[in-house]
Amino acid sequence: MRAVVVHAAHDLRIDEIAGQELAEAQVRVRIEAGGICGSDLHYYHEGGIGTQIVLKEPMVLGHEIAGRVEALGSGVAGLSIGQRVAVSPSKPCRECRYCQAGQQIHCLDMRFYGSAMRYPHVQGAFREGLVCDAAQCYPVSERISAGEAAMAEPLAVCLHAVRRAGAMLGRRVLVTGCGPIGALCVLAARRAGAAEIVATDINDTPGALISRIGTDRFVNTASEPSALEAYAHDKGTFDVMLEASGSEKALVGALAVVKPGGIIVQVGLGGTATLPINTLVAKELELRGTFRFHEEFALAVTLIDKGLIDVKPLITATLPFTDARAAFDLASDRSRAMKVQLAFA
Amino acid sequence: MRAVVVHAAHDLRIDEIAGQELAEAQVRVRIEAGGICGSDLHYYHEGGIGTQIVLKEPMVLGHEIAGRVEALGSGVAGLSIGQRVAVSPSKPCRECRYCQAGQQIHCLDMRFYGSAMRYPHVQGAFREGLVCDAAQCYPVSERISAGEAAMAEPLAVCLHAVRRAGAMLGRRVLVTGCGPIGALCVLAARRAGAAEIVATDINDTPGALISRIGTDRFVNTASEPSALEAYAHDKGTFDVMLEASGSEKALVGALAVVKPGGIIVQVGLGGTATLPINTLVAKELELRGTFRFHEEFALAVTLIDKGLIDVKPLITATLPFTDARAAFDLASDRSRAMKVQLAFA
Amino acid sequence: MRAVVVHAAHDLRIDEIAGQELAEAQVRVRIEAGGICGSDLHYYHEGGIGTQIVLKEPMVLGHEIAGRVEALGSGVAGLSIGQRVAVSPSKPCRECRYCQAGQQIHCLDMRFYGSAMRYPHVQGAFREGLVCDAAQCYPVSERISAGEAAMAEPLAVCLHAVRRAGAMLGRRVLVTGCGPIGALCVLAARRAGAAEIVATDINDTPGALISRIGTDRFVNTASEPSALEAYAHDKGTFDVMLEASGSEKALVGALAVVKPGGIIVQVGLGGTATLPINTLVAKELELRGTFRFHEEFALAVTLIDKGLIDVKPLITATLPFTDARAAFDLASDRSRAMKVQLAFA
Amino acid sequence: MRAVVVHAAHDLRIDEIAGQELAEAQVRVRIEAGGICGSDLHYYHEGGIGTQIVLKEPMVLGHEIAGRVEALGSGVAGLSIGQRVAVSPSKPCRECRYCQAGQQIHCLDMRFYGSAMRYPHVQGAFREGLVCDAAQCYPVSERISAGEAAMAEPLAVCLHAVRRAGAMLGRRVLVTGCGPIGALCVLAARRAGAAEIVATDINDTPGALISRIGTDRFVNTASEPSALEAYAHDKGTFDVMLEASGSEKALVGALAVVKPGGIIVQVGLGGTATLPINTLVAKELELRGTFRFHEEFALAVTLIDKGLIDVKPLITATLPFTDARAAFDLASDRSRAMKVQLAFA
Repeated sequence: MRAVVVHAAHDLRIDEIAGQELAEAQVRVRIEAGGICGSDLHYYHEGGIGTQIVLKEPMVLGHEIAGRVEALGSGVAGLSIGQRVAVSPSKPCRECRYCQAGQQIHCLDMRFYGSAMRYPHVQGAFREGLVCDAAQCYPVSERISAGEAAMAEPLAVCLHAVRRAGAMLGRRVLVTGCGPIGALCVLAARRAGAAEIVATDINDTPGALISRIGTDRFVNTASEPSALEAYAHDKGTFDVMLEASGSEKALVGALAVVKPGGIIVQVGLGGTATLPINTLVAKELELRGTFRFHEEFALAVTLIDKGLIDVKPLITATLPFTDARAAFDLASDRSRAMKVQLAFA
Repeated sequence: MRAVVVHAAHDLRIDEIAGQELAEAQVRVRIEAGGICGSDLHYYHEGGIGTQIVLKEPMVLGHEIAGRVEALGSGVAGLSIGQRVAVSPSKPCRECRYCQAGQQIHCLDMRFYGSAMRYPHVQGAFREGLVCDAAQCYPVSERISAGEAAMAEPLAVCLHAVRRAGAMLGRRVLVTGCGPIGALCVLAARRAGAAEIVATDINDTPGALISRIGTDRFVNTASEPSALEAYAHDKGTFDVMLEASGSEKALVGALAVVKPGGIIVQVGLGGTATLPINTLVAKELELRGTFRFHEEFALAVTLIDKGLIDVKPLITATLPFTDARAAFDLASDRSRAMKVQLAFA
Repeated sequence: MRAVVVHAAHDLRIDEIAGQELAEAQVRVRIEAGGICGSDLHYYHEGGIGTQIVLKEPMVLGHEIAGRVEALGSGVAGLSIGQRVAVSPSKPCRECRYCQAGQQIHCLDMRFYGSAMRYPHVQGAFREGLVCDAAQCYPVSERISAGEAAMAEPLAVCLHAVRRAGAMLGRRVLVTGCGPIGALCVLAARRAGAAEIVATDINDTPGALISRIGTDRFVNTASEPSALEAYAHDKGTFDVMLEASGSEKALVGALAVVKPGGIIVQVGLGGTATLPINTLVAKELELRGTFRFHEEFALAVTLIDKGLIDVKPLITATLPFTDARAAFDLASDRSRAMKVQLAFA
Repeated sequence: MRAVVVHAAHDLRIDEIAGQELAEAQVRVRIEAGGICGSDLHYYHEGGIGTQIVLKEPMVLGHEIAGRVEALGSGVAGLSIGQRVAVSPSKPCRECRYCQAGQQIHCLDMRFYGSAMRYPHVQGAFREGLVCDAAQCYPVSERISAGEAAMAEPLAVCLHAVRRAGAMLGRRVLVTGCGPIGALCVLAARRAGAAEIVATDINDTPGALISRIGTDRFVNTASEPSALEAYAHDKGTFDVMLEASGSEKALVGALAVVKPGGIIVQVGLGGTATLPINTLVAKELELRGTFRFHEEFALAVTLIDKGLIDVKPLITATLPFTDARAAFDLASDRSRAMKVQLAFA
């Protein structure tokens, strides 16, 4: 079977890899679609993520995936051959103190597809066939495509991010950064009842898209650097800010427009950010990290499947997985692409 | 000017009443539409609400209202003649300890239109012209009708009820009672991100409507008394229950299907309910009252105006206010009517 | 080995029972002290608890226990022979959806010592020697007695109850019912920062004790039925009510003195309570059940061991376990006893 | 009447100032004690606080004050001549949108004693006689000294900080910085039920004191730079961190020892802090600012007055106000002083 394997920075190959054994309570899924995530791009361009996570061996990439069940291990109930499923890339241990506290995101022994956080690395899911636990598979209806189903993973990240902000009904929300995560944050915040959503980016291309999916206003903070100032009156306007750019400038620049007591959810990864402590203190702002998801994966599948969130406009292009390099290059060009997916079947 | 005045149970009249003085910071609104609420019906049928609230003098009814500004008092900014507005019937004192704590709903000196809770009663707004504080007026666009604008008030009640349940994104929700408040609770819960909504009533007519506005399933608990049992497995299914019937049977009957730690928001007024204490304790259920609204009025206007909640399907009929008795009779017949409104202009 | 076994209502015996095998990760504890709980008394007097939980076979009673480790199974770390430990009677399955969500209290396969909730019943811990999981054992220092350590269990119930009320710092708290659970609720609420605590009972004996342990005021609601009225002004005084009597009269009688938005935590088990729905709604009260504990057991041990909560004044008497009937009779007489414990060593 | 007036950096004088008129609902208080706060020291040493708050005219310092009522304006109830009171220095406007939302801390028109945040500056309370609103005065019993009463203000800051962390019962807490605010945070966290408190400073003198008031462990992070590492295992130990030093190093250095999902309350003012975004994200930490207090002033008075918090050990020295310079110099020397107060009577 073939897979998309990163060997080093700029060294992405289509390799033949061994098939996996099918054990009890597992299924084999014929992968149909796989979305390219920012972390995949980091491995492709830099051979790692930041200074802590470095590639030490070839690794199959990919963790945004959907396909069809093609074989059932013993003891699997509730799934049938041919069923289309979205596959969660997250496998917490269920035993550690965080899992037992319902904080599986912080599992001390997490296995997450396509991640070099631990060694040996956890191999990813950009492969023709994947053996996984039946519990990782969430059936979807035939109404939605494999590509939409593969959006469940990044949507789950954003649903979790929105939940980290608490009740959203009626909130005025600022989303900074309009990449796929920013765009999905807009969709998630709107689904959760945000009354007003303003989104910013330094690039007009994603802005055009984001305006079509329910954002009240888009601001290009590069070309209109003072456009947000109007939101700073009376100590600020926004109840919630979802920071999806990982940019220090976006984070710090927006402190003036968040209301006292407002919540800033940091979704985007990044380097360091130098914050003015007195502003944080005097306005009693809350800066909350958000990381991945747990139960929100099932929720993402439900919301996509019921048509309560429409992710289709975000899928810019779908290329054969054998053209992975072209797909990764396209995904890296924010002026041309939002979400790029690979087709496997 | 004419108004709809209740003099006693079954004694509803169209009376000529005196106009009101226009003071500083006030406006006069030409009322266009007024929705008939359950409390209006209680005054009409019983001359009061329960044993505590009893009519002691003739009272203009009505608190779900919208119209157009027709005169501006001194010092009014942000409103113009001819502007359509939804009018909030709620006037907290701003000074008492609850107002200063942001709990205006519990104001010690609340004046709420068309209520006999205090004496002299606070006269209501089913009248051709209403003088009110400019701060009570929320402009709406010409995109929406006066009838839709008048739905802001009951929608605000339901937005507040949904907020009382905490973050709603992804929740499985049971709504018991499909009158106007139950139906608006469905809309509000869906807007706030509920993943699944099951609604119940003992009458099929509202059920048909409620199924069209985004409910996943309707259950007639009179004709299918055991249909909810499937939701009782593994200690329960629903994260949240919005009790909008005021019926003890609905409340108690649903305890089995709410999950441990689940939240029951009691929206409907009623008499007494005899609860099994051990179930409440062992499942750690939370029963929360919800009453009226405060900042949710503005939110209701925003959501209706932006098309984020569509209240139109709930407006069954609009009758001239001069036919108030016919309108009240229609509104009292659940087999024929959801929300009935009066037209004034 | 001998144990305290209930065979039927009024049939409590000291029976010789078989010892238990010591498996991996388990320890054998020589029981030193065991506190008699209300549920033990229900089995003794009524052969069950309410209509749902009925004794179907002889059952060792007891779940408030402490002792010394006397044998270690293989693979046990962190415990040593002779170490005094408080033993948690709670064994959730760790696997079900509630355990995986951190809601072990609602485990679908809970085993809790001395409970007839499931059949075969889970045998209790009033026995000379107990084999349990090492993970159930919480070491205590030699500063505290076995009796104090055995108070960890009921204290854990009350710590959980207080946590169910949210942040307690500065709250004005009403505790209804001054049995052992009510008294421990006072201690827990004070430890958590309650600014004012008023406690009520219909009996003066526990009131005298409760006044000595940090209660601001005790009210005998039987002899001073209108004494609470002073707390009803301006819609109520108490932020939090901890209902520890299981009495409908206590619960309903106190609704007037809880502030709008106030929280009532129902700790006491009971039959039914007939609540005025309109009061709950109009004051937006919250009635929350609380059941047992999970992580609060470790916390109870810590707080007792560090002297941050002093449970000693609540231990009325300690009798040899061979006098169990006399001890149970004493524990049943509220005019003479708060907490009664059995001595095993 | 005489007052302690700062004219510029290093220019602190005892000036004769005019008395104030006594209006309706006001009282005149003969000041007895005034505590020197860090912000007073900033005005004294730097003529301002940071770059934003700069002295533009002479200003009476002081906002931690207590004294005795010596004259009553008309309409004052509940206070009597000679009554000792703690005086809150905070005067929110009651009218702005934040006041009406119960967020008086963020009042758009706040007047806070001894602050150059607005111009003309709000004159402070280090003066022999102070005219203030009766509502600012909180009676205390004769059990406590004026000095203890004057500690209500900084204690209120810390009670609010602790409340910002949510429910504290059973939490493991790290306090960084053991000045008066850090020490009061320890007392407040313990009062609120913290199970374990570790405090750090770079100076041993406050550490010795802080160990006597209920801290489980003191760590001098200057002399034992790796002592906290033991708390970093399994992703961290502390549920809550109260950052009371305003030091970037303390804040950033402690991220490793706060548990995933843990809460860091930033109490100390400071310059900037450069945070590692990925740590904040991956551990889902929450960084919350906290600023001053509102209802916590009354709470501080209650807790001190009832003996539930003992602030006496923190009062290092009391000097006549006429020796203000010596007092300010002493207060500036962390190796000699915790809280220094001025005596006025």
